[in-house]
Amino acid sequence: MRARSYLDWNATAPLRPEARAAMGDAMDLVGNPSSVHSEGRAAKAMLERARAQVAEALGAQAADIVFVSGATEAAALAMAGRGLAISAVEHDAVRAWGEEALPVDERGRVRVADPARSCLQIANSETGILQELPEGLAVSDWTQGFGKVPLAFDWAGIDMAFVSSHKIGGPKGVGALVIRRGLDLQAQIRGGGQEMGRRHGTENLIGIAGFGAAAEAAAKDLADGLWEPVDKLRIFLEKTLEDGARSTILVGKGVNRLPNTSMFITEGWKGETQVMSMDLAGFAVSAGSACSSGKVKMSGVLRAMGYSEAQAGSALRVSLGPSVSKEQVAAFCDAWLTARDRKFAR
Amino acid sequence: MRARSYLDWNATAPLRPEARAAMGDAMDLVGNPSSVHSEGRAAKAMLERARAQVAEALGAQAADIVFVSGATEAAALAMAGRGLAISAVEHDAVRAWGEEALPVDERGRVRVADPARSCLQIANSETGILQELPEGLAVSDWTQGFGKVPLAFDWAGIDMAFVSSHKIGGPKGVGALVIRRGLDLQAQIRGGGQEMGRRHGTENLIGIAGFGAAAEAAAKDLADGLWEPVDKLRIFLEKTLEDGARSTILVGKGVNRLPNTSMFITEGWKGETQVMSMDLAGFAVSAGSACSSGKVKMSGVLRAMGYSEAQAGSALRVSLGPSVSKEQVAAFCDAWLTARDRKFAR
Repeated sequence: MRARSYLDWNATAPLRPEARAAMGDAMDLVGNPSSVHSEGRAAKAMLERARAQVAEALGAQAADIVFVSGATEAAALAMAGRGLAISAVEHDAVRAWGEEALPVDERGRVRVADPARSCLQIANSETGILQELPEGLAVSDWTQGFGKVPLAFDWAGIDMAFVSSHKIGGPKGVGALVIRRGLDLQAQIRGGGQEMGRRHGTENLIGIAGFGAAAEAAAKDLADGLWEPVDKLRIFLEKTLEDGARSTILVGKGVNRLPNTSMFITEGWKGETQVMSMDLAGFAVSAGSACSSGKVKMSGVLRAMGYSEAQAGSALRVSLGPSVSKEQVAAFCDAWLTARDRKFAR
Repeated sequence: MRARSYLDWNATAPLRPEARAAMGDAMDLVGNPSSVHSEGRAAKAMLERARAQVAEALGAQAADIVFVSGATEAAALAMAGRGLAISAVEHDAVRAWGEEALPVDERGRVRVADPARSCLQIANSETGILQELPEGLAVSDWTQGFGKVPLAFDWAGIDMAFVSSHKIGGPKGVGALVIRRGLDLQAQIRGGGQEMGRRHGTENLIGIAGFGAAAEAAAKDLADGLWEPVDKLRIFLEKTLEDGARSTILVGKGVNRLPNTSMFITEGWKGETQVMSMDLAGFAVSAGSACSSGKVKMSGVLRAMGYSEAQAGSALRVSLGPSVSKEQVAAFCDAWLTARDRKFAR
């Protein structure tokens, strides 16, 4: 089999060895964290260790972290029934609960009129475009920013933020909602009273242990500058594709973006076809955010930025990570430019 | 450190080696099951393999299984907003959504007037008492019965049932809701459209893989008769404690119960104290169902069966599993009877 290059880190990141090791340790514990006996207390201690790790990585306090099954559940918990104002560039998990009222400019930036009644993402999963979060914001989706750019909840002046474990090299199916001290939260999943009554149900101990370890490792990587070479690699990727394909549009050019995310529009070449063609050539990339069951949906993000339907349907996202090499990116550029030449030579 | 005996299988069961191996395999896959590239399709295939395993173990069809974060979420998904009639012996996760209207007799049996508007558990987590599920039942909590007694959804004539992975030796934080074909279900966690639109959010792939393997192994164990010696061991435990402590009451004596669960009432000796005393002696047991954060709540199940508050506060649950030995049970009986003598000698 041909060696593969995984360039779809925004869909999900490879599991970190630290997460794997922590999950192995958690597998050795038999107790339920709610049990009062020795086995239960050991499980509880592991849960609280992971909570401290996630809090530290988020610049928050452990008591303000609620573990959930992922960012999608966190969005529901933070937003359902509140009618918060959102924009069209938010993820579907946020759009499910918000009122689309905030304007998006052609550079992908969102203007927030009433922060206390609004939700705004820190970074867009498709374009990597970063937002400035206004003081007093009700909710922020930190899923794509966490681990890639510096974030500190206790200094952000916002009410709630949420993150997902699998975007930072932890397991899928785990996430956290951070809540400003003193704010009330009505549990949606109710029963045993876990998570201080804010999210009931026996805790996903193995997953949470992996999340904690991944959060600690991700924060260290960021502090150690591991995303700086990724940023350089992304710039190399963007320059190579722009130089080789003059009609291709780099979305969010010149706008503050994540270090690892590039979105290209090549009109007349469907994003889905580009993904399949690159997949056959050994590269995992995406036509937008991963959504359900192989269904490829046109990007509402690009439409909101003023791109036409044809343009939005011809987008390709490449998202890198610290273990991606320059050789892999160069090989991807070659393969993509070759496929493009073949496509338009016809 | 003294060797420990884990006799609290209803709180959570030890992780099966098959689950651990499957989780290790899942850790090696990088893809998001929603991605269309090769990595995504491999993740999706693993997800669907686990779905088939869980369906087979439940006597159901794969298409009717919705993976969720556990039985607590499943209860919310199946019951919220429906006002189903329940009894006081249901788990808190069910009581959060039901209307307490069904009578419980002194043997712990529930009478259901209108099955189509009711929820009834198959087995009680505290007493092990089994219920007969009426045809046409709206929802059944199969959490404690799954893997311990034969269950087949497609033959049960009920609308929905739910189970938890960690009670059968899979990881915590995963569960499934089974839905009769043709029934509608409004998703509560919304966003990416996963699980056929019935439960959105990136799937807990590692946990689900473990759940699938555990379900397959649990079904095989049950078919191979591995719970028959557990049943004998439970009878030995009950006889030994009843013979040694004449005033101790065995709850549900003579009633159809799970093969592994015994609940004893010893008036004048708080359940919580018994648990701590047994914990120091090396045995993990429980005063009822594991609930939040070490808080020990008096059993509403026993109150519903007509026991006094003092009796309900003096209950001890012992729940066994296939890897528990007769020596461990005998040692527990010795330790408990000794502690009891010491307690009442004062």
